[in-house]
Amino acid sequence: MTTLRTVKVHRIGTAGPDDIEGLRRAIDDGEIDPKGIVAILGKTEGNGCVNDFTRGYTSHVLKHALASWRGSAPDAIARDVAIVMSGGTEGGLSPHLLVFEVGAIGLAPSEAVSVVPSLAVGVAMTRAFAPEEIGRMPQVEATADAVRRAMQEAGIESARDVHYVQVKCPLLTKQRIADAHQRGRSVATLDTYRSMGYSRGASALGIGLALGELRADQVCDSEICSNAALYSGVASTSAGIELMENQILVVGNSPRWGGDLVIGHGVMQDAIDTDAVFDALAPLTLSEPGRLTRAERERVVAVLAKAEPSASGEIRGRRHTMLDDSDIQASRHARALVGGVLAGVFGDTQLFVSGGAEHQGPDGGGPVAVIASRAPSRLVPR
Amino acid sequence: MTTLRTVKVHRIGTAGPDDIEGLRRAIDDGEIDPKGIVAILGKTEGNGCVNDFTRGYTSHVLKHALASWRGSAPDAIARDVAIVMSGGTEGGLSPHLLVFEVGAIGLAPSEAVSVVPSLAVGVAMTRAFAPEEIGRMPQVEATADAVRRAMQEAGIESARDVHYVQVKCPLLTKQRIADAHQRGRSVATLDTYRSMGYSRGASALGIGLALGELRADQVCDSEICSNAALYSGVASTSAGIELMENQILVVGNSPRWGGDLVIGHGVMQDAIDTDAVFDALAPLTLSEPGRLTRAERERVVAVLAKAEPSASGEIRGRRHTMLDDSDIQASRHARALVGGVLAGVFGDTQLFVSGGAEHQGPDGGGPVAVIASRAPSRLVPR
Amino acid sequence: MTTLRTVKVHRIGTAGPDDIEGLRRAIDDGEIDPKGIVAILGKTEGNGCVNDFTRGYTSHVLKHALASWRGSAPDAIARDVAIVMSGGTEGGLSPHLLVFEVGAIGLAPSEAVSVVPSLAVGVAMTRAFAPEEIGRMPQVEATADAVRRAMQEAGIESARDVHYVQVKCPLLTKQRIADAHQRGRSVATLDTYRSMGYSRGASALGIGLALGELRADQVCDSEICSNAALYSGVASTSAGIELMENQILVVGNSPRWGGDLVIGHGVMQDAIDTDAVFDALAPLTLSEPGRLTRAERERVVAVLAKAEPSASGEIRGRRHTMLDDSDIQASRHARALVGGVLAGVFGDTQLFVSGGAEHQGPDGGGPVAVIASRAPSRLVPR
Amino acid sequence: MTTLRTVKVHRIGTAGPDDIEGLRRAIDDGEIDPKGIVAILGKTEGNGCVNDFTRGYTSHVLKHALASWRGSAPDAIARDVAIVMSGGTEGGLSPHLLVFEVGAIGLAPSEAVSVVPSLAVGVAMTRAFAPEEIGRMPQVEATADAVRRAMQEAGIESARDVHYVQVKCPLLTKQRIADAHQRGRSVATLDTYRSMGYSRGASALGIGLALGELRADQVCDSEICSNAALYSGVASTSAGIELMENQILVVGNSPRWGGDLVIGHGVMQDAIDTDAVFDALAPLTLSEPGRLTRAERERVVAVLAKAEPSASGEIRGRRHTMLDDSDIQASRHARALVGGVLAGVFGDTQLFVSGGAEHQGPDGGGPVAVIASRAPSRLVPR
Repeated sequence: MTTLRTVKVHRIGTAGPDDIEGLRRAIDDGEIDPKGIVAILGKTEGNGCVNDFTRGYTSHVLKHALASWRGSAPDAIARDVAIVMSGGTEGGLSPHLLVFEVGAIGLAPSEAVSVVPSLAVGVAMTRAFAPEEIGRMPQVEATADAVRRAMQEAGIESARDVHYVQVKCPLLTKQRIADAHQRGRSVATLDTYRSMGYSRGASALGIGLALGELRADQVCDSEICSNAALYSGVASTSAGIELMENQILVVGNSPRWGGDLVIGHGVMQDAIDTDAVFDALAPLTLSEPGRLTRAERERVVAVLAKAEPSASGEIRGRRHTMLDDSDIQASRHARALVGGVLAGVFGDTQLFVSGGAEHQGPDGGGPVAVIASRAPSRLVPR
Repeated sequence: MTTLRTVKVHRIGTAGPDDIEGLRRAIDDGEIDPKGIVAILGKTEGNGCVNDFTRGYTSHVLKHALASWRGSAPDAIARDVAIVMSGGTEGGLSPHLLVFEVGAIGLAPSEAVSVVPSLAVGVAMTRAFAPEEIGRMPQVEATADAVRRAMQEAGIESARDVHYVQVKCPLLTKQRIADAHQRGRSVATLDTYRSMGYSRGASALGIGLALGELRADQVCDSEICSNAALYSGVASTSAGIELMENQILVVGNSPRWGGDLVIGHGVMQDAIDTDAVFDALAPLTLSEPGRLTRAERERVVAVLAKAEPSASGEIRGRRHTMLDDSDIQASRHARALVGGVLAGVFGDTQLFVSGGAEHQGPDGGGPVAVIASRAPSRLVPR
Repeated sequence: MTTLRTVKVHRIGTAGPDDIEGLRRAIDDGEIDPKGIVAILGKTEGNGCVNDFTRGYTSHVLKHALASWRGSAPDAIARDVAIVMSGGTEGGLSPHLLVFEVGAIGLAPSEAVSVVPSLAVGVAMTRAFAPEEIGRMPQVEATADAVRRAMQEAGIESARDVHYVQVKCPLLTKQRIADAHQRGRSVATLDTYRSMGYSRGASALGIGLALGELRADQVCDSEICSNAALYSGVASTSAGIELMENQILVVGNSPRWGGDLVIGHGVMQDAIDTDAVFDALAPLTLSEPGRLTRAERERVVAVLAKAEPSASGEIRGRRHTMLDDSDIQASRHARALVGGVLAGVFGDTQLFVSGGAEHQGPDGGGPVAVIASRAPSRLVPR
Repeated sequence: MTTLRTVKVHRIGTAGPDDIEGLRRAIDDGEIDPKGIVAILGKTEGNGCVNDFTRGYTSHVLKHALASWRGSAPDAIARDVAIVMSGGTEGGLSPHLLVFEVGAIGLAPSEAVSVVPSLAVGVAMTRAFAPEEIGRMPQVEATADAVRRAMQEAGIESARDVHYVQVKCPLLTKQRIADAHQRGRSVATLDTYRSMGYSRGASALGIGLALGELRADQVCDSEICSNAALYSGVASTSAGIELMENQILVVGNSPRWGGDLVIGHGVMQDAIDTDAVFDALAPLTLSEPGRLTRAERERVVAVLAKAEPSASGEIRGRRHTMLDDSDIQASRHARALVGGVLAGVFGDTQLFVSGGAEHQGPDGGGPVAVIASRAPSRLVPR
């Protein structure tokens, strides 16, 4: 009997930023082996903006719990598990965790010849960046390298089989800027908040380079966060204060992995582009074009999308008010909107919709990826 | 040649609460006869809650402009034209006006026999209410009477042909409460803000009674704003300080009216219930079930829906955070969500989604109505 | 008997952005002659930021009412009366209008020799600016000229007698930027929102130049909105879409004016600097240093102050969270704070505290002016 | 040499909800003995309303750190140290911790006779409440008992020497309500959010009873959260989900304690009542009435106040807009306002201003307490 790697994705609702009871129960019940966890993505119910402390709170609680479950130090957890929290559950979005667990699956000899590509994940880290590299070409290039390594680790040969790349990347702080200045170096921006956008943007461009979506001669320092025409259609990047390197999670399909799950993606051209959602569902061979049956909806285990207000102030020629609303941040409006569009399609509100989409899909749109199970299952869980 | 009444619905985007340039242009260009205007519904970009002054601002500007265009006094306008502003364009919702204009259409003798029902509107007013009647059975019953009169005026014989009833209703102020107290009467609530909900709820129950959705023995004072199981599937009610009577606009289909437009409706069972949207589209005989082609989308001239957070705190078993968010009012989240769901279906964000849905559809859901043109047109505009 | 000009300041509370009943009553009662009104400053209860429509709503209502009261066209009102609405009544700030009415007062011969300076106002307009001049030196210089003319009109000889200068100035729109580009000119910023800051900043620097607070060689295009060390201690500037020129109101003391009122000012070095408030009260000769008695509080008729969060993120070494709060705009926090500080001193919340303080006082602080009556009154109203 | 108990109050600024570096440093430097800590009050930078997770985050971090510093279990910390976080740093309020540390102080024989009262603290717990007792007389009475015990422990004989009582009290959850219902008991309210107000209100009334501010015959179930005329002038109560008993911290002055610190209090009659602040400063014998010199300001180590919008909608006859603002919660406005008033008096923004003031001072006002050092110091630290 042949053994293949397999990755399970557990979607677990939460009752608050400190609620890990669902995950604890799944571990206690033997549904999840905590040592197999390679990544946890989560939607938390803060504002998703500067003073959203729910991300840190959930990360803090998860890190300590994982350390105890895996018998390791919290600091080791930060290195071994990609913990990426995205704040903001506007509209109907429902707080939840997506737990990626890697294991092994046995294959009967008869199956080995006809194996189809299954969900595959790979992780990689860049080196730690100097402050002056953040938001600039060194970050772009190191990210591209790391994406290639993560693909290799995942056994994904073609860029066409990569459907989602999550990057957690560093940001500038006053201290880091001061450090660069003391060494006589300039930084991409003196505004620490804007440095998050630069870091996310440079990381997304690195993904685009690695996957051949962009050519090397298109990308340079001056284009970062200024040329919206350059983008990756599979990037999802997120900046955090706790690291200085880029942490990469590549998700795609590979014949070297087993299991029922597959991933697809589409690129929403604007915030209400449902056609792109059906592009993402292509691997599922739906029974009817442009809609999901109830049974098909139940096969979906994760929906991951990016949301941002269009800079034009319009959606298909109609004015939106997101950018002019001084009471609610524009990215909160955008998440609510894209969450509604996707909830209508999937009949579900447990959707990983995140903001901050520099170079991640076109202006006002963004990548959307769907992980779902093929049915009926061909593979026997070991 | 026979003459039929006809009603046109003009959807006009606005650049701000004081922007009536689009309407002015349509009148200047002869597209709209200001004397034919019977109602203007509008989405304005305030917060849709207590301190949303955009509704009053737009109403003020419209009233003065209509007075000048029609050569009458502003006070007469308030009586003759139903001006209903709904605040809140959260998510991607786009500020706009829906102008209902009644005219006449000529029918060739050959057509008169096979005429199909077309969009029809009727308006009616109740008497002015005493403060102690607001939010109680007298308001319910007077509304039911007025709805029946408006149907009669519209030539709509069956309640099944009514698809949307807009009511503008009064609210309590400190002065009005004091007036009731001086006459030894109690009022439905001492909280002026909550009185808006009571007035909306009583009005919606009146609509339900008139249309046979509810039986007379089901409705009494103690059920108003307390029994969510009682509701109308076509009601949309809105409270305003400027009137003491209920102003009713009934919209349905009738063979006594001509023109290309028809209306349908569905009742969303929750905020993401797209099936109900396709119920509302039934009169259009779509080419494929469960989706609109681009050509079909272009035939839609108005989408009217109600949005409210479910009191259960869940949507299809998933937790939502609308009711616990002290930074953004729950109704703002709900409008953004329902706006997203509908925008995904219609490919358009000029949607009249309003909040405050007491007895208007089930908890967490609400009525949705669609006005669209049949194609190809059978009727020749006069 | 000699006749002097005199200016009365009426402080009138409002119940909402469309409430002008208090003003109407004062006119009906003969307390205010509508033809004498030269300026109305108002605090309205919007968010004071981009989508604050309460300012426009109140201005609209006032303009139409003044036109009717004065028997002139609304457009003439815009030219003849400075109507400046400041949005934002955070914390305890109370919405109100400050109506400046100019009249005449008779002086007995015996008084003419010992006359003391009294409250004086002067108004002036610049020419209309081209879009490319906004936020740049031409606006600075034209403002300085107009301030000098307004002083002359007011009969204020020394800059030391000027205690408050209100400027209403234009902003850039997409159309205005396009117009400049078509003529081959650049503009100060492509961001229409930021253009408001540039226009306010340039106007404030113009005031500083006119009053000798700044030297001509200190001010140039590159310093506007970048060098916070340059500021006027009496400027209060506000940008609006409805004009292309700067409209100036100079308020000071002059022996050529009669009446009980005087004005003083101080410059708050930070948001909690009560010492500056007592500088502003200097003309009143308080009975005790550093506090107002009840009787002294009752002599105050207007308090005008600017509020902004300190860019340092600190107030006297303590961290504030205004700049990191993505739920409430920083300027809203700042108005609430300064409003509280001043309410504690004056025992009153009808305070004209406004935001947007580019070059108006030091970073985190701002000018504060107080208009109050001397007591006992020496002058007999005619 | 005689030994007296003494309590030090450390005011430590924080850079975020997870920042305990300042406290850690003080412990590392030997300034604070972690085993002496009896209470930590903190202002965190959330919204202070329902979805403010900064309180839980800081409590979580503090509990784990104290457990490690004291060598005990986190659960023991919850029992031994009163950790009370108050969310909301609106306006200029600065996030900080107030650490109460109890120790001993030596007294020379010559001093023992003339000893003056010094700052004293006492802690006590009630029994755990059944859900049906929360917000009702059993909670009132048990709180009164516990306050008396805490006074006894603190050696405070007269209620007049008590100036601040902090209570942390439980709230109702869906589970707790269900538990009461299963046992056939009703609860004070079915609304979990409102249960916080009931619990705070009952706790405050218990304090009022214990201190003789209220008579037993005045307080009954129906008065709780309905009769605003009943209140304690020294209560500060706060509801939390993590406990079922009331945790009480009494702060006053007692001759049985040594040290430089003393506490005083006043009762603000409205949000801008600075006279009450000077009542609170009475123990300091200020050099001038109604104002603090710079030296006197430096002797202040903690300011504790309650803030709430007046239900009348007015402050001294001027309308406020706090209760009508659907964008910013009323309690956020109120904290910003009271924070500004107090910052103007103290020249400092590190103020513990908290909301939710049921039966804690009169409507729209609230207690204010000040802890400061007498100078020059008479007592020699051991």
